[in-house]
Amino acid sequence: MSRQLHFNLFLHDTGHHEASWRLPESDPYANLSLAAHQHLTRVAEEAKFDSVFLADSPVLWSDPGRRPSGKLEPTLLLASLAATTTRIGLIATASTSYNEPFNLARRFASLDHLSGGRAGWNIVTTAGEAAARNFGLDEQPQHRTRYERADEFLEVSTKLWDSWADDAILADKQAGVHAARDRVRSIDHHGTYFRVDGPLNVPRSPQGYPLLVQAGSSENGKEFAAKWAEAVFVAQPTLRESQDFYADLKRRAVAAGRDPDHVVILPGIVPVIGDTEAEARELDAELERLIAPEFAVATLATVLGVDADRLRLDEPLPADLPGEDEIEGHKSRRTLIVEWGRRENLTVRQLIGKLGGGRGHRTFTGTPVQIADTIQHYFENGAADGFNIMPAVLPSGIEAFAAKVVPILQERGLFRTEYTGRTLREHYGLPRPANRLELISR
Amino acid sequence: MSRQLHFNLFLHDTGHHEASWRLPESDPYANLSLAAHQHLTRVAEEAKFDSVFLADSPVLWSDPGRRPSGKLEPTLLLASLAATTTRIGLIATASTSYNEPFNLARRFASLDHLSGGRAGWNIVTTAGEAAARNFGLDEQPQHRTRYERADEFLEVSTKLWDSWADDAILADKQAGVHAARDRVRSIDHHGTYFRVDGPLNVPRSPQGYPLLVQAGSSENGKEFAAKWAEAVFVAQPTLRESQDFYADLKRRAVAAGRDPDHVVILPGIVPVIGDTEAEARELDAELERLIAPEFAVATLATVLGVDADRLRLDEPLPADLPGEDEIEGHKSRRTLIVEWGRRENLTVRQLIGKLGGGRGHRTFTGTPVQIADTIQHYFENGAADGFNIMPAVLPSGIEAFAAKVVPILQERGLFRTEYTGRTLREHYGLPRPANRLELISR
Repeated sequence: MSRQLHFNLFLHDTGHHEASWRLPESDPYANLSLAAHQHLTRVAEEAKFDSVFLADSPVLWSDPGRRPSGKLEPTLLLASLAATTTRIGLIATASTSYNEPFNLARRFASLDHLSGGRAGWNIVTTAGEAAARNFGLDEQPQHRTRYERADEFLEVSTKLWDSWADDAILADKQAGVHAARDRVRSIDHHGTYFRVDGPLNVPRSPQGYPLLVQAGSSENGKEFAAKWAEAVFVAQPTLRESQDFYADLKRRAVAAGRDPDHVVILPGIVPVIGDTEAEARELDAELERLIAPEFAVATLATVLGVDADRLRLDEPLPADLPGEDEIEGHKSRRTLIVEWGRRENLTVRQLIGKLGGGRGHRTFTGTPVQIADTIQHYFENGAADGFNIMPAVLPSGIEAFAAKVVPILQERGLFRTEYTGRTLREHYGLPRPANRLELISR
Repeated sequence: MSRQLHFNLFLHDTGHHEASWRLPESDPYANLSLAAHQHLTRVAEEAKFDSVFLADSPVLWSDPGRRPSGKLEPTLLLASLAATTTRIGLIATASTSYNEPFNLARRFASLDHLSGGRAGWNIVTTAGEAAARNFGLDEQPQHRTRYERADEFLEVSTKLWDSWADDAILADKQAGVHAARDRVRSIDHHGTYFRVDGPLNVPRSPQGYPLLVQAGSSENGKEFAAKWAEAVFVAQPTLRESQDFYADLKRRAVAAGRDPDHVVILPGIVPVIGDTEAEARELDAELERLIAPEFAVATLATVLGVDADRLRLDEPLPADLPGEDEIEGHKSRRTLIVEWGRRENLTVRQLIGKLGGGRGHRTFTGTPVQIADTIQHYFENGAADGFNIMPAVLPSGIEAFAAKVVPILQERGLFRTEYTGRTLREHYGLPRPANRLELISR
């Protein structure tokens, strides 16, 4: 079979546009509603998407006045969604800086069992002082320290997932032996950040490990992705930048000794679909009108590392912004925004309008055929293995994408018409990892 | 309406008897099966039980050879079960020693939202060196230290659950204001064990707080229960001991300034049901035959704090066992077992036989009428507000209890025939807690 696209739906209550909750059609309580998430996931599963995904941070993320800001904990929400779905993958963000590896490795192994092999983990190190102050710290650990801890966190987690051999459970009722004791082993990890004896108290899960996903695209982030990630979410505003990122990350994976096909690259896109181009542009414009600038300026200022009063709505960005090296936050997002603003010579107001929709992700505005064409062009020109679909408005944005764009791509042979696999790894064409403890002990 | 019983089903894969997995009827993979847990929970919900409950510890709990020892993480498993149930309460154990309050408070608030107000938290401090060694420690914190941390953990958690006012969300689309910023507040907790700024990133949940449950009955445990617990699971082998515990804990609650009716006491019972007494006794005997003594001796030795070779199968317990003060583990379980063994002059083999069934909980063996009579007797004689039902074998034990014992109690007016409430607190007749930050700020 020829190479096919992969699609992930990035769940985000009423949509990725920050003003989407203000539309008449939107349920402003969708962020707290299991039923709303069940509906979105069902639409994506009926369209044969590979997965759905929930972002997260252990902190109140945005001004609660601005948009629905409360967020249900993603591993629990996905565990709920596992009960009412059968095929679609379930990817949750969780932080390596503010969790213990034993607890988190166990939660993902549990989600993988509960879902029959559909769990994925988007690994983040969590930027920001505010999160640190929810966990006893005065300030956040440095960017490099966070990534060193993340690397060791993954070492511990994979050891724990391997602590039960795949054939450990005998279930021998006659002999009265449930599991072979020599096939369940301590890990005795004594490292820089963690000491964990193990074994895990959950047997090896259907996928072995959850699908490992990563989204940071700073230098540290890309090195981490090249070593660990099997799927990568990325924000790149142009085709050329997507191609550069794609080629660079595949090269880094090869340099790390990995098969480049085992790192699936999924740029984020914000499809804004109209039956005509004019209709699509009208939806775009309506959303931009609904943005409240005072909230948006405050957020932009945080990302850029400056005081809000330095940003003037109808002027371009100040010339003397702090560099990527001077901030401890979302380094790559900061750089992307600054470069975008300067390249297109945007005022702060114009920049906010564009960011309100996609936060740096590419917005594809147009008819279903136009959007399908663009997706195909990226896919066939070294820019993407698939896409992280981030509809500006939900559920209508994914309903339109599923009903109008997916069938075009299926007709062109670019997207599956039925699931052929059972697990999330099978959907993405990724292998089930061998048990490393197994290899050592035999 | 006159006072009625409350029932909790203690979920435990193939049953609470350690040899239950060896019966021909048992699925030895039930511990990892969502479908098996869905079935048990459905049976309990159809019987109008108040709740189901999952125990837990962040460590491989027992010898994996002995019985199914892998356990899915309970908050995730209950989140899955929330999606396929509508009324029954969902109680998960979680440790205050090996979690961060921000993360755990958030998970319970999320479970409460996902389930429409059906979440409960069984608060444990987690005994044992093995658990400590999964979290970077050489040895476990002392019993008293663990309870001090638990107390502050609850302070932080309740502040976080109160950090959003109940009326914080305005969802004012016209004005573009989602939540009132002055109704979402930092908690700025700077204590001995924790520094947490908050606010939580989840709005106040349907129940305000999850139902707070506790099960330790050491001196520290009882003081903690008197202060915080709204439902208490307890193991007491005789009616007299249940009465003493019941009176003592209600007195302590009053001394702590609380309404004694707001502490619901639920002794654990192991019903072994037969259509005749002889049939019930035969099931008991069959289970006892299936216990593998070498595993059971090792576990007993751990609880008692002695080497396994000090215990001889056909002799009574040694006279010189370490006292409750000398062990750091499950103090009250240790004392209960020692007193039981000495009172009835049991050999180690006999003690293991009894513990294999109920681990110190009262086994009620008999016909449905006999079991209903005993339940009523406890309930009407100051020993219980209801029961934590721990069937020796699952699912058959809960199916028999639901089909044969529950209707007798319903006929006698002692148990509900329909749910009258929506939330777990309503099932147990407990109030929704007021928002404390609210009281301070107004």
